[in-house]
Amino acid sequence: MSDFDRLRLIRTESVGPVTYRRLMARFATPREALAALPDLARAGGRATAPAIPSEAAVEAELRALQRMGGRLLFLDGPDYPPFLAQLPDAPPAIAVLGGAKILSDRAVGVVGARNASANGMRLAEILGAELAATLVVVSGLARGVDAAAHTGALRAGKTVAVIAGGLDVAYPPEHAALQARIAEQGAVVAEAPLGTAPVAKHFPKRNRIIAGLVLGLVVIEAAARSGSLLTARLANEAGRELFGVPGSPLDPRSAGANDLIRQGAHLTESAADVLANLPDFPGREGLSRDPMFQRISAPGFAESSPRVSGKATKPTRWNWPAPAA
Amino acid sequence: MSDFDRLRLIRTESVGPVTYRRLMARFATPREALAALPDLARAGGRATAPAIPSEAAVEAELRALQRMGGRLLFLDGPDYPPFLAQLPDAPPAIAVLGGAKILSDRAVGVVGARNASANGMRLAEILGAELAATLVVVSGLARGVDAAAHTGALRAGKTVAVIAGGLDVAYPPEHAALQARIAEQGAVVAEAPLGTAPVAKHFPKRNRIIAGLVLGLVVIEAAARSGSLLTARLANEAGRELFGVPGSPLDPRSAGANDLIRQGAHLTESAADVLANLPDFPGREGLSRDPMFQRISAPGFAESSPRVSGKATKPTRWNWPAPAA
Repeated sequence: MSDFDRLRLIRTESVGPVTYRRLMARFATPREALAALPDLARAGGRATAPAIPSEAAVEAELRALQRMGGRLLFLDGPDYPPFLAQLPDAPPAIAVLGGAKILSDRAVGVVGARNASANGMRLAEILGAELAATLVVVSGLARGVDAAAHTGALRAGKTVAVIAGGLDVAYPPEHAALQARIAEQGAVVAEAPLGTAPVAKHFPKRNRIIAGLVLGLVVIEAAARSGSLLTARLANEAGRELFGVPGSPLDPRSAGANDLIRQGAHLTESAADVLANLPDFPGREGLSRDPMFQRISAPGFAESSPRVSGKATKPTRWNWPAPAA
Repeated sequence: MSDFDRLRLIRTESVGPVTYRRLMARFATPREALAALPDLARAGGRATAPAIPSEAAVEAELRALQRMGGRLLFLDGPDYPPFLAQLPDAPPAIAVLGGAKILSDRAVGVVGARNASANGMRLAEILGAELAATLVVVSGLARGVDAAAHTGALRAGKTVAVIAGGLDVAYPPEHAALQARIAEQGAVVAEAPLGTAPVAKHFPKRNRIIAGLVLGLVVIEAAARSGSLLTARLANEAGRELFGVPGSPLDPRSAGANDLIRQGAHLTESAADVLANLPDFPGREGLSRDPMFQRISAPGFAESSPRVSGKATKPTRWNWPAPAA
């Protein structure tokens, strides 16, 4: 089962994380799945077969990643982060620059507002440093809280940046140096192919990877309906602990974290609040999930109600053959 | 049973709220209790009988109170606030200036730091106004949060100030006009005799009255080990709901309210959070208490472990006769 075939299947049009899992459960190898795709799509009512990338394109991506010192971790491979693998829509592959090993260490996420207050930034940096003394600190390299958390963590220990674009794209541009430092001292993780400039749809996908990598997530200054709250929802669904840093009701940036606390997140003033409430392992819900592929029990399914990671914006209808008796 | 005798017993040395209750449970009238006090004290090992105020002094207090338009409410009288009566150490009498009737209305307390931030003051005023639209707002007339809460409440409805000194003492001096306005539009309550200038020991007693009058208590910007947190503890012991307004962990004034939230107080950003969580009546613990006198079941007791309201700093040991079989 070559990385080449796997990556080619992953990069195929309309093959999202859930479809990839089901194909891999159905077929012995990625190559067999690739060969079956045109028939599956036709039987599912598609007029044209999904676009499979050329061998040359896949080879070029693998070579470019190797040249820059990165590597791919596959969901069914040995080094894939075990907590991330528990997500039902875990990325089939992630590209990593830096020490891929720390992705399996005990980690906590620190996320929050891009337009954070000076106090919010200071808190994120303090928490990042305090937490990095004993844990890996994961964030999204965004402006504001994310960058402050990474910066604090770099002073004290290890940090992981999950980025929305490709591993070779610095975004936001002013964080290029920070991104490079994190790759040297920690790790940078990307789901999107090399060369991808991040657009709106990539950020929710990035957020679910943060949620998947961590045992707990700290939210600082997240406004209502913010990306940080989406990350919190995903972390909660995955059975991870939630932590909220409280703030004044007069600052709209406090509304999200305050509301999380109201709903049961641990009120967090310092790293001690996190350490006292972080489980040794992900919560029951997370642990109860089969971390690897699940067998398909019924023929015919739609990749409907796509989670944030759904590759296609409109779900693709596949027509599965009945499983062999 | 005259107000005169009651007040004379209440003003007697070493007769605190708990002793007063027990005396009234033991003797048919305050006059009989007064007559028995010297023997009780001697039997309890006291060298001298407790000082009973002269008839002239008690008459003077009653006259002075009447002159200024105030009145006394006795624990076993008809107009005494029913929720306050549930405290095991409810004041035997309170002096009231203004509308004594509103002391029996549904009320919520708003307390916090004297050295509050501008934001804390603003929040207290907003909450005071929002809550006073449907409830009586009770506070302690202190500098900072208390005064702001009263001010907001005066704009929208009724408010009650519980003061630590006598009803004729304006404290703090700069709140004299506010105190007068509250007496006109709401009510001012005092446990201490007229002419009492408040000192440190009076404030915890004032705090328990606030806790006793309210169905719920909102704490804004209370530092660790502050008087507001003591009020919160007393309110909690009395089965009242607790509400905390969150604040930044970087401001020490937020520590107390944040910690209350961590311990289960309702996170409160606006009056809606209070209204949604305020019981129709005090909580189970409060309701399960006998609101009036309890019979003494065993002879010989010390008014030991005095609560904040203990009149004597050192408990007085009384020797009770065995109850008649």
